[in-house]
Amino acid sequence: MGQNLIYLIPVCGIMALVFTYWKSAWVAKQEIGTPKMKIIAEAIADGAMAFLRAEYKVLAIFVFGVAVLLGFSGASQDSSHPLVALSFIVGAVCSALAGFIGMKVATKANVRTTNAARDSLGKALEIAFAGGSVMGLGVVGLGVLGLGTLFLIYNNMGWDIVKVINVLTGFSFGASSIALFARVGGGIYTKAADVGADLVGKVEAGIPEDHPLNPATIADNVGDNVGDVAGMGADLFESYVGSIVGAMVLGAAFIGVIGFENTNEYGGLNAVLLPLVLSGVGIFTSIFGTFFVKVKEGGDPQKALNVGEFLSAGIMLVATYLIVKGMLPDTWSANDIATSELKEFTDTGVFIAVIIGLFSGLAIGYVTEFYTGTGTGPVKKVAAQSITGAATNIIAGLGVGMMSTAIPTLILSAAIIGAYEFAGLYGIAIAAVGMLSNTGIQLAVDAYGPISDNAGGIAEMAELPKEVRQRTDKLDAVGNTTAAIGKGFAIGSAALTALALFAAYMQTAELSVIDVSKPIVMAGLLIGGMLPFLFSALSMNAVGRAAMDMIKEVRRQFKDIPELKAALAIMRKNDGKDKKDWSSEDIDTFEAASGKAEYSKCVEISTKASIREMVLPGLLAVASPIAIGFLGGKEMLGGLLAGVTVTGVLMAIFQSNAGGAWDNAKKMFEEGVEIDGVKHYKGSDAHKAAVVGDTVGDPFKDTSGPSLNILLKLMSVVALVIASMLA
Amino acid sequence: MGQNLIYLIPVCGIMALVFTYWKSAWVAKQEIGTPKMKIIAEAIADGAMAFLRAEYKVLAIFVFGVAVLLGFSGASQDSSHPLVALSFIVGAVCSALAGFIGMKVATKANVRTTNAARDSLGKALEIAFAGGSVMGLGVVGLGVLGLGTLFLIYNNMGWDIVKVINVLTGFSFGASSIALFARVGGGIYTKAADVGADLVGKVEAGIPEDHPLNPATIADNVGDNVGDVAGMGADLFESYVGSIVGAMVLGAAFIGVIGFENTNEYGGLNAVLLPLVLSGVGIFTSIFGTFFVKVKEGGDPQKALNVGEFLSAGIMLVATYLIVKGMLPDTWSANDIATSELKEFTDTGVFIAVIIGLFSGLAIGYVTEFYTGTGTGPVKKVAAQSITGAATNIIAGLGVGMMSTAIPTLILSAAIIGAYEFAGLYGIAIAAVGMLSNTGIQLAVDAYGPISDNAGGIAEMAELPKEVRQRTDKLDAVGNTTAAIGKGFAIGSAALTALALFAAYMQTAELSVIDVSKPIVMAGLLIGGMLPFLFSALSMNAVGRAAMDMIKEVRRQFKDIPELKAALAIMRKNDGKDKKDWSSEDIDTFEAASGKAEYSKCVEISTKASIREMVLPGLLAVASPIAIGFLGGKEMLGGLLAGVTVTGVLMAIFQSNAGGAWDNAKKMFEEGVEIDGVKHYKGSDAHKAAVVGDTVGDPFKDTSGPSLNILLKLMSVVALVIASMLA
Repeated sequence: MGQNLIYLIPVCGIMALVFTYWKSAWVAKQEIGTPKMKIIAEAIADGAMAFLRAEYKVLAIFVFGVAVLLGFSGASQDSSHPLVALSFIVGAVCSALAGFIGMKVATKANVRTTNAARDSLGKALEIAFAGGSVMGLGVVGLGVLGLGTLFLIYNNMGWDIVKVINVLTGFSFGASSIALFARVGGGIYTKAADVGADLVGKVEAGIPEDHPLNPATIADNVGDNVGDVAGMGADLFESYVGSIVGAMVLGAAFIGVIGFENTNEYGGLNAVLLPLVLSGVGIFTSIFGTFFVKVKEGGDPQKALNVGEFLSAGIMLVATYLIVKGMLPDTWSANDIATSELKEFTDTGVFIAVIIGLFSGLAIGYVTEFYTGTGTGPVKKVAAQSITGAATNIIAGLGVGMMSTAIPTLILSAAIIGAYEFAGLYGIAIAAVGMLSNTGIQLAVDAYGPISDNAGGIAEMAELPKEVRQRTDKLDAVGNTTAAIGKGFAIGSAALTALALFAAYMQTAELSVIDVSKPIVMAGLLIGGMLPFLFSALSMNAVGRAAMDMIKEVRRQFKDIPELKAALAIMRKNDGKDKKDWSSEDIDTFEAASGKAEYSKCVEISTKASIREMVLPGLLAVASPIAIGFLGGKEMLGGLLAGVTVTGVLMAIFQSNAGGAWDNAKKMFEEGVEIDGVKHYKGSDAHKAAVVGDTVGDPFKDTSGPSLNILLKLMSVVALVIASMLA
Repeated sequence: MGQNLIYLIPVCGIMALVFTYWKSAWVAKQEIGTPKMKIIAEAIADGAMAFLRAEYKVLAIFVFGVAVLLGFSGASQDSSHPLVALSFIVGAVCSALAGFIGMKVATKANVRTTNAARDSLGKALEIAFAGGSVMGLGVVGLGVLGLGTLFLIYNNMGWDIVKVINVLTGFSFGASSIALFARVGGGIYTKAADVGADLVGKVEAGIPEDHPLNPATIADNVGDNVGDVAGMGADLFESYVGSIVGAMVLGAAFIGVIGFENTNEYGGLNAVLLPLVLSGVGIFTSIFGTFFVKVKEGGDPQKALNVGEFLSAGIMLVATYLIVKGMLPDTWSANDIATSELKEFTDTGVFIAVIIGLFSGLAIGYVTEFYTGTGTGPVKKVAAQSITGAATNIIAGLGVGMMSTAIPTLILSAAIIGAYEFAGLYGIAIAAVGMLSNTGIQLAVDAYGPISDNAGGIAEMAELPKEVRQRTDKLDAVGNTTAAIGKGFAIGSAALTALALFAAYMQTAELSVIDVSKPIVMAGLLIGGMLPFLFSALSMNAVGRAAMDMIKEVRRQFKDIPELKAALAIMRKNDGKDKKDWSSEDIDTFEAASGKAEYSKCVEISTKASIREMVLPGLLAVASPIAIGFLGGKEMLGGLLAGVTVTGVLMAIFQSNAGGAWDNAKKMFEEGVEIDGVKHYKGSDAHKAAVVGDTVGDPFKDTSGPSLNILLKLMSVVALVIASMLA
């Protein structure tokens, strides 16, 4: 069976890319709409591509530099290192490509969704979701194709399997480092533009953020694409690849294990192939699911998304059972690190580990929803605390974020112990693979959100009738629960994958024990624990600086561009008056200003600032494990990884959920929220206090929080790549 | 030598208490001042004592319950456990007594300082500092007397030394648990009263927080005493005791070690006695230092404090060298856990470990000062970010707090590795003892701050001439650097003591390795890491709820008490007018309201709320190590301790420094701060934004942040107490 599987895996990846191409072409064929919509959409698409070009230029230098170091570092001791460099480059390129494909289709789908929303909700959903599924299947397709092909090539070199997989880890390194830069860079971009459009445009000048007179409006919409689409795509690509590679490394330890020797001609290779096969099959269940996401006018888009996602998850679960049963022997014996004795494991145990992974991911998702969903107890409390001002709102949000770490941590701990009990370290790794095997459709749902959001922005900027915006808002409003569950899987899989990579690092570095009572390990643990704090501080400061650049530019435009200046003066003169009551002269002057704002300058500034600011946090993540590993030794590096995993997971949950709670507390005021018997609306003092909380939460939930999930895996994979040198 | 030392140690403690009694009597002999001052001071003192009574009533139940459990748990297996319960009770009582003594003298010294400030700065300093030194020497006196006496008794039981010290650890458990409750309860009290006085009194009703019409004003001043004096006293008592006990347990491992057998009749007992002797001698150097804290009119109080502190630190350093050289053998060999081989250690190495401890504490203090001091780069940045509103101010403060974890963590890691390199685990423990041997005078300086602060409040309430307040302000303003250094020592010693207790736990639980790659240990690490987040969330929510109770009460009084209502109406009528321009009728009505506010109701509410709210976080801290230890086993408990130490240290630094930076950024506006060429003052929008940051920072730096230092030691000591049952 194994021999055929090896060739079939890349084929699954190709299938996904074919689907991606087909869907993408379908999206491109849809109508764009009015000329104004076309102009706006092109400006957004151009801005997004300009960012990607600038980002990839910098990343190319980084990738080249690291590849040279990787190739060179091993030249003297092991001929395989140039190939680690190759894996690294392929991983980086696949990750970049995934981001590119996603952004390309998103910037096409957004305006077409707007246009479709002029007629029907169903068609709009179809286009937005098609855009999302291009992204989703592009990511998994590139992951499976890249890993599968490289594995095929290296496996034919005649090396032993451990070496094959060691060389393959470079792919994960490439994927993770690009993901970190993309997340941080995209996060900074989107927040800088957001603050510029909000703070100067809306608050200082009194112009809505999506209004054509607001110079930062295009940059703001570009930001949604580079942050929420490209950033998230690279992020999930790295999670997906990381979980597969982690399980493959641990699977290699099964070679020669009693019970495994006869499963195929390679002897135990099946444990290595299992994660790839699960991911390959997941591609088909994801594609299958996408065909069920359909809604009629008046129907519920949430239900449509649920049907697609749960259907494909259900089929995947059955498939997983059959595959695990088919590929693994009924029983085998392996060393139990907890007791150092031989222990018997079963294929059913591995399947149970997958179930544990799925349920813990789901449970963490529901906890996330409980702490951050509109109208839930904690979010209501944050809204209620806005009555006494911004300070109490902030304290309440911080409290919710911190409190929300408790249950997910307990769930994760139980999952780790449970998966290990049933299937050893391999069980922990496979649980993460199980969580992510449906990434194709999960990401389709995730990416559908920002596409609908963008569609609404375009409707506003192009001044389309109100019902268009209402339809896109309806699309945008759903998918919160699915997104929360997606977050649960992201956090859960990040922790489990980091542990799998940690175990893989220990195997490769020939470490049997990392004793935390040794001072050097404790020092590593402390420093590792500190890194997520430092990383968060760096990225928050970066957002602050980038936003300042943007604020200055927007202010400059309002001061230097005569038409904008005149339009602002007229707005101030007619303060509060409805536009139809203005004098015709005023209206003429005002209309003349439309389009005079230099949007591209703002786009350029956001791009420059975010590229400049992403470098330091990114380098910190790559350099620290290398520095600690070579200066402090492999045990200290082990401590560092444990520390970064623990506080990374905690800080990620804390920041994401605090940000989510603030965001939805603010949103509750938009529909009116009853506190102590009085109803408070948008524009009230309490609402203003809630806006402060939301602004604080933005860099938490969109920049530093999600980056931490990548950070902890990136550090583990860097350690894994240098492990053989430290051994 | 050993035999005599054992008797001399309690004598040192008695000496400190004699000094305390003498100074306290001297303070009581000073003039109180006007009848109005007397009434105010009595209200504050009564409120403070009412809180202590209420708190101690609840704690008595807790202490009784735990003591019964401790005594009972060991009844079947080891007859020594009733004595562990005894140690626990004595530790708890000494801690409570330390808080009581400190608060008693502080509530006497405050008004007398105010009165002295009517004439001279020098006399005011003398009284405030005398109050502080009663607190400081009361704490160290009770610590050394309690530990020394119990050691003497247990050592005469004929047990082996390991058992003696195991039984003694109960003392540290008692001290730590009372400290945690006192810190949390006091922190909640002071913040609830503060918010009530500020938010309703100042913001809603427009009455200054220290004005007699403000119903929460007495509660606010009581809060300074119960939080900053009694809370801090219990806190430092537990740090002091914890570091000594940690070093004693590790010292017991030297019994029978080659080189140690002939140091005295007990064979190696000197390593056990060293921490007690250092602390005993520290009492004398502290007392000596207090005599040099003197200032003349026009002189610099900061210099006076520095002279006293550095003089006593310098002498202590010389004394430490002589004591270490005298008590320890020149060389000995012990097992090195890092390599599992015999390694040679020297007495000079132990002294170097003390030096490492001192310098790392100092360095962390200076880093703290850099990130939180008025006018430093980071604080200026927080102030500058207030220009664009509360949100950017909050983001900047959070960024500063997170960033400020980096260097202290590196210093701590270097200290851990360095102290271990020179003197093994014992070196880490002794480094912590060295940091705290001067606690007597350090705490005198720390407690002097809130006394001067209170003196200023009394001057305001008693409507004394302006120069009195100016003098007390001058006293209050100094001591920031010394306080920052005190914080550095608190954090540094907490981390090192926790590690020493951690090592002690492993010895007692017969664990040789805590392997973080075992899933059960990793789960413990995750849960342990989460606890400081949960604990912070609980205490922040508690502050929120308690503040709400207070807000409602103050609002009720303004509504229900006719005189207050009338006075408020008159203030509103004469809005902005100077009081001398009011009509005489208005002035009469206004004056008639003075003293009509029901201060005691506010005091009662703060007391009730804080006592109610301190229970849950306190029980969490005590119960979690017990639950994990018995359910998950001793290895998982080891993981839990490592996790709580790492994130506890990080969260403590993050929260304390973010709070400090916000506080001083706000203060910078009071004197005017230049940002981008424009000067911003008190009352500006930027200042209002900075006030929001300060309010968020209050529970960070006064409730949850400092409690975490206690939390991590309390958990370690609970683990240590139950270790022999888990072995």
